[in-house]
Formats: sequence, structure tokens, C-alpha cells
Amino acid sequence: MDLLLKGGHVLDVFSGEFVRRDVAVAGGLVVGFGAAEAREVVDISGKYLVPGLIDSHVHIESSQVSPAEFARAVVPRGTTCVIADPHEIANVLGLEGVAYMLAATEGLPLRAFFMAPSCVPASPLETAGAALSPHDISELLSRERVLGLGELMNFPGTVSGDPGVLAKLEAAGGRPVDGHAPGLSGPELWAYVLAGPDTDHECTGLEEAREKLAAGMHILIREGTTARNLSALLPLLSWRTAPFVHFCTDDRHPETLLSEGHMDDVLRRAVAGGIAPELAFVAATLHAARAYGLSALGAIAPGFHADLLVLADPSRVKVERVYVGGRLVAERGQLVVDLPCTDTAGVRGTVAVDLERLSFVIPAGGGEARVIRVVPGQVVTQGLLLAPKVVSGEVVADTDRDVLKLAMVERHRGTGNVGLGLIKGFGLKAGALASTVAHDSHNIVVVGATDEDMLTAVAELVRLGGGQVAVAGGEVLAELPLPIAGLMSDRSLEEVARAGRELARAAGELGCPLSDPFMQLSFLALPVIPELKLTDRGLVDVLAFRHVPLFTG
Amino acid sequence: MDLLLKGGHVLDVFSGEFVRRDVAVAGGLVVGFGAAEAREVVDISGKYLVPGLIDSHVHIESSQVSPAEFARAVVPRGTTCVIADPHEIANVLGLEGVAYMLAATEGLPLRAFFMAPSCVPASPLETAGAALSPHDISELLSRERVLGLGELMNFPGTVSGDPGVLAKLEAAGGRPVDGHAPGLSGPELWAYVLAGPDTDHECTGLEEAREKLAAGMHILIREGTTARNLSALLPLLSWRTAPFVHFCTDDRHPETLLSEGHMDDVLRRAVAGGIAPELAFVAATLHAARAYGLSALGAIAPGFHADLLVLADPSRVKVERVYVGGRLVAERGQLVVDLPCTDTAGVRGTVAVDLERLSFVIPAGGGEARVIRVVPGQVVTQGLLLAPKVVSGEVVADTDRDVLKLAMVERHRGTGNVGLGLIKGFGLKAGALASTVAHDSHNIVVVGATDEDMLTAVAELVRLGGGQVAVAGGEVLAELPLPIAGLMSDRSLEEVARAGRELARAAGELGCPLSDPFMQLSFLALPVIPELKLTDRGLVDVLAFRHVPLFTG
Repeated sequence: MDLLLKGGHVLDVFSGEFVRRDVAVAGGLVVGFGAAEAREVVDISGKYLVPGLIDSHVHIESSQVSPAEFARAVVPRGTTCVIADPHEIANVLGLEGVAYMLAATEGLPLRAFFMAPSCVPASPLETAGAALSPHDISELLSRERVLGLGELMNFPGTVSGDPGVLAKLEAAGGRPVDGHAPGLSGPELWAYVLAGPDTDHECTGLEEAREKLAAGMHILIREGTTARNLSALLPLLSWRTAPFVHFCTDDRHPETLLSEGHMDDVLRRAVAGGIAPELAFVAATLHAARAYGLSALGAIAPGFHADLLVLADPSRVKVERVYVGGRLVAERGQLVVDLPCTDTAGVRGTVAVDLERLSFVIPAGGGEARVIRVVPGQVVTQGLLLAPKVVSGEVVADTDRDVLKLAMVERHRGTGNVGLGLIKGFGLKAGALASTVAHDSHNIVVVGATDEDMLTAVAELVRLGGGQVAVAGGEVLAELPLPIAGLMSDRSLEEVARAGRELARAAGELGCPLSDPFMQLSFLALPVIPELKLTDRGLVDVLAFRHVPLFTG
Repeated sequence: MDLLLKGGHVLDVFSGEFVRRDVAVAGGLVVGFGAAEAREVVDISGKYLVPGLIDSHVHIESSQVSPAEFARAVVPRGTTCVIADPHEIANVLGLEGVAYMLAATEGLPLRAFFMAPSCVPASPLETAGAALSPHDISELLSRERVLGLGELMNFPGTVSGDPGVLAKLEAAGGRPVDGHAPGLSGPELWAYVLAGPDTDHECTGLEEAREKLAAGMHILIREGTTARNLSALLPLLSWRTAPFVHFCTDDRHPETLLSEGHMDDVLRRAVAGGIAPELAFVAATLHAARAYGLSALGAIAPGFHADLLVLADPSRVKVERVYVGGRLVAERGQLVVDLPCTDTAGVRGTVAVDLERLSFVIPAGGGEARVIRVVPGQVVTQGLLLAPKVVSGEVVADTDRDVLKLAMVERHRGTGNVGLGLIKGFGLKAGALASTVAHDSHNIVVVGATDEDMLTAVAELVRLGGGQVAVAGGEVLAELPLPIAGLMSDRSLEEVARAGRELARAAGELGCPLSDPFMQLSFLALPVIPELKLTDRGLVDVLAFRHVPLFTG
């Protein structure tokens, strides 16, 4: 026997109760509830032992750090398994990006499973760095640790039987299919479920979640950095529904991971919200594992992987020790094992822009201009009609009325595409903000008070090979290099969070009133969320799902 | 839309509640909870709609009728799916027997799934009609409707890593594996579970069931004809445990099916025992389906097969209408669809005995004789030591002391093997009883007061091609022909039950005090259940797991 954990209160996920029980581990597996002898005996009397937590839907890229650094952040907090959707990097690098995520999670003290991204590119209204065909999906599904088909955002294509979507669903065979259907209801929901999706993590209201559960979907209660649905959805979770209700973070940014945590934070909120700890843990471990066909995860019983958390108090979800595969990997909030290094050569250098040809000049047009209005703290926008400020026949930023220039610069293939628009709500009195994180195609988004600073910002991102930057008067005020696909840093989470704070401070000093300007920037190019967005190919009227000109005339 | 069931209280298995909801069906599937129009609209206002019941472990052969006739008996009672283990016919006919069960369940209004029998032959102490190798298991597992590996009775081989057992487990890959581990506990249980089995249907006590559940096994609560564990195990079932606790019948004989029922009876007993109807139904439908990877069964939701029961009162489990795949198949206790016919030519003629050479002469031996003592109503026996009655150097039946002759006649291969012994408890004053149903090898078991009547009985079984018979004075008093593999009739359940009653009455008139003499006969050859048994190769001391001579001297 390799390890014997003696004297703890062990969560029996099958009966939903804590039970006094010894746990014997050999070869990385739980092998029984006692042993005559063991190489290592650990007394955990008075402590609680629960299975490692499973994040049932996460985009690791949103942590802005490498998968290894992500593991360093979340494993000490008790997350031992993630179902990751590499949708972001796939939009930049396609199969190569997913291959990097698989390689970069090899040998981590975190079990990382993946869903094959189903919607790359996310829409025909933008230029992504890659496309994943049904054939690519099949190829991905043949790899170890790829469990099924990632979130199926193309609702119309799914219910209308679009051949490309059907081919991807066919490739998935009977494997799990993640859904993504915010607000879908009634006959449209039934048709969507009938086509294949098994889960949904987009519910914002209890009634929506109840309806989707009744339609047979597993409901993943999401508590991310921006999207926080836990308190609204918590009443859904009971012993009756636990087999079909799990937790996920979807997108947690560096600052959230550092200050609040990961799945430990989600569980803590659930318990604080009135859920019995046993129930919260069972939903987030065994039942999540079963939902994704992971038959050897999520329980402390013979034959299950010995992914175990030692807690002092299950209500507070304060993780003292973490075992993965029977090996102690974290203690008192710190990883105690070395992390492997992954070669990032293949995922760098993803920013290709011809700076010589780049121009943000907008010739004045007829009628009024369609202006995007930011809604603070939300990913939706509004569309306004305004007469822009025009100087010498060209539209210029008007800081007095807070009408700034916005541009989307295609950065994957050097097409030279630049989408140009106007935006209200960023409040910059000077300077520019730019980022290579811009859902879902991750082109360069740049907002600015002058064309010169916008150019400076983009030039700096080209120099960095991706990242986020705040500039003014030709100077870089703050920056976060994201050399991995323009999405992830090669630094520590702490450094990334610090750079993020400096970027926000710099934006604030330039006049921006938004609490998270780079989050808001990152959603301005997403043409599937209302109301008016901008891609590298121009303005998009999301409700009409088509491009519209800047000027009405 | 093909069908719209309007106005019923529909069991939402995901929330565990009855909900007022319309159910729309198309192409055999539930497609939604309402429709503007449908080819057929059925008003079920005031009624209850639940998913069809799943028997999670059953030997159809024990019904003594063909699979089609079994369906005719159980479908009107609400069983729409069975996980069948064709272990009995496999012991007679091997792959050919399983192929017959697959063919005979094709096109029935009952979804019959199968587990590949893992233990054929059941022991090395007897002669079965066939053997299933790991290669055969692989072949079976490649067929549609074969879900996994059948009950793994070879506990020592499983935990010691017997290459044959390991090869079968390997063939099962990640598929479900049924266990069979009566009384197993502690380290032996952990080792068994670690090797693969996922379920157990042999628990007789609550503590045993709790321990197995904690070890990660799904507990199938069995309520058969002889083995009745429901009342003891019912406290195990709660909303917490429901994902891992299901119901099965294992073996129900014709009379039980007729007078008590099938899964409807099991559920009725569960509800009478204090289980909320919602909980009982969820355990017996969705969770049973999930346990066996049947992802489109067990719920009334879009994408699930429209296997539906209309009930007037869920507590009484009185099934009024049964839909399978959206088609009305039974109403008011009667099937309303035609059943397909299956060619039985390949599974007849399984009784090969050279009557010329058959003899039941037992030469007198030294010391005392090892005599089997029947325990009324149980499958275990006791071993006694007695001095038998000897006439002219030969042991004869002694009806005064109720010591009768017992013989096991090998009937599969015409080997001429005859195991001879003595038995106490059958009480026959004259005549003989014989049967080709004798677990697990299903040779001919015959008990008698005279050698002549024993020969007559065996000769009649040879003439019938299998069955059960009571004879006296050279005359057949009652008989049940079982031409299909010597296990199943080609008649109706009612006829079979009537013949069974006549056989029991004839046995009683011959002096037998046992309430079910042919059930008791059928377990006398099973060398895995204590204490003293007889196979075609001789007496077996079950606890020592070896053959012993009749005489101690």
C-alpha cells in the first residue's frame, strides 16, 4: 500500500454522507477503506476528505496564463479536474492551438479533459485565424482526453440541420455535447436538445434553468468573473436534481482567481447560499464526472483515482492538502510538485499586421453614424445614431461627447482588413487601449482618442506578439504581453494580475470610467451578442446578423 | 407530430416531480412538451405518465417461456426494457443460445438488452453444453444490444487475476460489468470491485448493501420468485442514493409473473414499503438506464424514446396503457400488437442421452453415505451421513426413512456421465420427478423412489426434448415440455403455469411435502451454493469446492 489516510471524515458520494473511514491508496487509485500497513500513513483525524473538484466547463485561456500556471493557481484550491473548451486558442491557431493545450496539460497535477471546439470560426461575419472542419473534429475526438463536442453556439444551424453542424454532431457519435443556448425556450429549445446538446452553462434565471433541466439538459451553474449565475440558480440544486446540476467557472480572469479562487470559491458560495456541503460536493465531483463519462473520477472508493482534498471544515472549503493520483501535490495553498515545461514556439508569433498600410481614417458619410454604446459591466452593447465630429472631411474622435474611434484589425493572416467604427462609453480623454483578446476571433481591438495613439498601441502589440496595452502621447503607459497565441502570458498569475491592475489604472487615468475596460473591449467584436458590434469586416447589426455601414445615409 | 398526450401529470425524472405537461411524440421519440397539431391526440387528463420500467437484471429463461411470450406477460405490466443475462441458455447452447435470444427479442414491443455471460461453464465440477471463451465474449460484445459483461460469479478468479477472467474483463473494456458477490465484504469486496464489477444484485441484508454501495457498486434490489430482498433493502433507497440503486427480478417463475406481476409488482411493493412513487420510478427508469449507458431511455424529454406508461394512480402502479417507441402496444393488461415468430429449430433437440446405457445402480460402499438434505424453500442444502438401505449389494431408495435416489444425467453431449447420490426431503413414496432445468449446466436432474420410474422420467424428457415431468408406475402423471434448450416452452405463460401447478400437485400426491419441488430440484446441481450438491460428475462438497465420493469408507 502506498498511502493510508487515517481517521478522517470521508465523503461517501454514493450515500451523500460523511463517514469515519480510512482510505488506502495504491498505484494512484483508492483501493480500499483500510490497510494493515502502508508506505506512508497520514493521520487526518478531525479533518474531512472529499474528492477533487471538477470544473465542468472552463476556457483556460481566460486565465491569461499558460495551462501549467493555471494549474498552479487552481490545484492548491482543490480543482483537480477541468473539462476545458479550447475555443479561444482554436480560433487563433486551429488544430495546432488545441494540440498545444493538450501538450501543455500533459503531466500536470491537474486532469485536463477537452471538448472539441464546435464553432471555429464563430460566425461568417469575421476573420478568424483558423477553421475547424468536421474532419478536424473527428481527428480531435480520436485523441486521448478529448471527450466530446464543445459548446454548440450555432443554434440556428443546429435546429435547421446545417450540414456542417450535423457532420460535427455525427463525428461526436454518442459522446457528450456541450450546449450554449442563452434564453432558448419552448419549441426552439426542444429542437435544439433533440439535435444533440446535453448541457447548458448559459442559464441566467431559475425558470430558464428549470425548463432546460426538464428538457433533459445538465445545467452547469456558472460563476465566472463577469457572468455570475450562482445565486440565481442555486435553488435548482437538490438531492433530486444533483445528478444533472454541476458547477463551472467558464471564464475567470487572473484577478478573480487570485482574490476569490476557483472551484473552492464556487463551492463556498453554494454552501453560503444554503446548500448542504455534502450535496454541493457530490454535484461538483461524482455527478460532474458521470455527466462527461469519466467513470474513474469523483468518488473515494475502490478503483477511483485518488484525487483527494483534505479540508478542515467542509462549509468553508478551505483546502489544506491536495492529492492527485495519490500523490501530494499541494499543501497550504501552494503547489509542492514541479511543473513540466511546454515548448511554446508553435503558438507564438500570431500577430501579423502590416503597420505600413494601417490607417484609421474614416471618411465622412451621409446621414447619421451608427455608434456602439458600451453597457458598463455587461457584454451586450446598444446601438445609437449620432452625427459624428468631422474635420476636413474625416471623422475624428470627439472626446467632449465621448465618441471615440474603435477599430478591429485583422491579425491572423495579414489580410489588411480593418473594421472601423465609433464608440461611446470608454471616456478616454487621450490615448488608446488595444488588445489581442477579442472574442471570438481574437483580432486586435483598439479604441482611441487619436489615430496616432491607436497606431502606437497596435504597433506595440505587434512588437509584443500579442497582449494588452494602454498608450498616450506615443508612450506605452502599461502593458501585458500575451505571447501565447495573443491570449496567454508566459509569466506567473501574480505578474499577470498586477499588469492587469496597471492597465486598468492607466485606462482610468486616461479618463475611462469602466471598472474593467479590457473585458469590455474583448466583447466588442463578438457578433453573436446584441446589439451593435464591430469585426474586422465592419459593423454588425447582431439582431439582423448582418453587416451594416457606419453611416445611415 | 405523430402523437400528443394531453393533460397528464408527467413524471419529470430530472426534477423528481410530477408536472402538468403535454407530451409530443414523433418518429418514436419524445420531441417536446406540446404541439399545435398531431396525427393522434390522446387526452390523459387526470392520469399519470411515467417512463417505461427497466428490469436491470433478469434471466428471461426463468420465465420458462419464449422471449416473445415473456414480452406478452411483462409489457402490459409496464416493463418496457430489460437488461437480460442469457446465462442459462448459454450453458446449454453457447453462442448459438445467445444468438437465439437476440433473434427472439428482435422486433418485440420490449427493448431487450443483454450482458455477455461471463461464467460459462459456471464451474469445472460439471459438464455444461458449451463454454464461452474470452474471444466469444468479444464477439458478443460487438453485437448490437449487448451492453457489457454478465454477472461475474467467479470471485476467486476475479481477485486472483485468473487469466481467463482478466481476458473477459479486458474484452469488456469500459463497458458495464455485472457483479455477483453474495456476502462479500471488506478487503475481498474491495479487491473484487477494483477488478471491475459495477453492480451487485445479490445483497440480502441492508448492511451488506450499504457496504457495497460505499464501495461504488450499483445495488440492484432483487425481488424474484425465490430470492426476495426488497423489504430488507428498501431503506437503502433515498434521493441521495437513487442514482445507484435500481430494481431487478433476476428470476421470476411463470406463476409469479401471472399472479403477482413483474416490475409493476416490484414498484408497488417499494411504494407500499414507504418509498415515494416519484423516487421509485426515477430509480427504476432514468437511473437504471444511466447505469447501463442507455442514454436515450428512462425519461420523458426531447430525444428520449417514447416508452411511456399511463397510470391512474402512481402508488398502485396499475398500468392502463403502454407505449413503446410512441406506439400503443398494450392496454388494460393486454398486448395490442402482434408478436414476431422466431425460428426455434436451432435451439431444439438439446437432450442427448443414451437410454440403453443409462443405469442408476449404486453399488454398496464402505462407511456411511453422504446424503443431501433439502432445506425447504431455499437453494442451500445440508450434508448428512447415513447408512443407506442395501439390497443384494446395491443401494436402494428407502421411502420409510425418506432417503431417495438422486441422479444427474449429462444431457448435452451424450457423454454417458451420470452422477449418483441420495437425498432426504423430497418425501416421495413412489415414482420420480425429473427436469432439464438444473442450474447452471442444466443437465437432467432426477429424484425417485425406484430406478424404473427414474428411467421412465428421463426417457420422457428425452422424448419431449426437455422439460419437467412427474411419473409413477411407468406412467407420466404430469409434464411440462420445454423444447427450447430444455429451458423454455413454446406455449403460453398460462399453459406453462398450469402445467407447473399440475406437476406440483402430482409431486404432492406422490408424497412430496415441498411447496415448489421443481425449484428445489433445479438447485441441487449448483456447485457454488453450499453445502452438498450433485453434478453429472458426482457429489460436490461445496465448501471444499471439490468432488467427494458417496461413501465415506
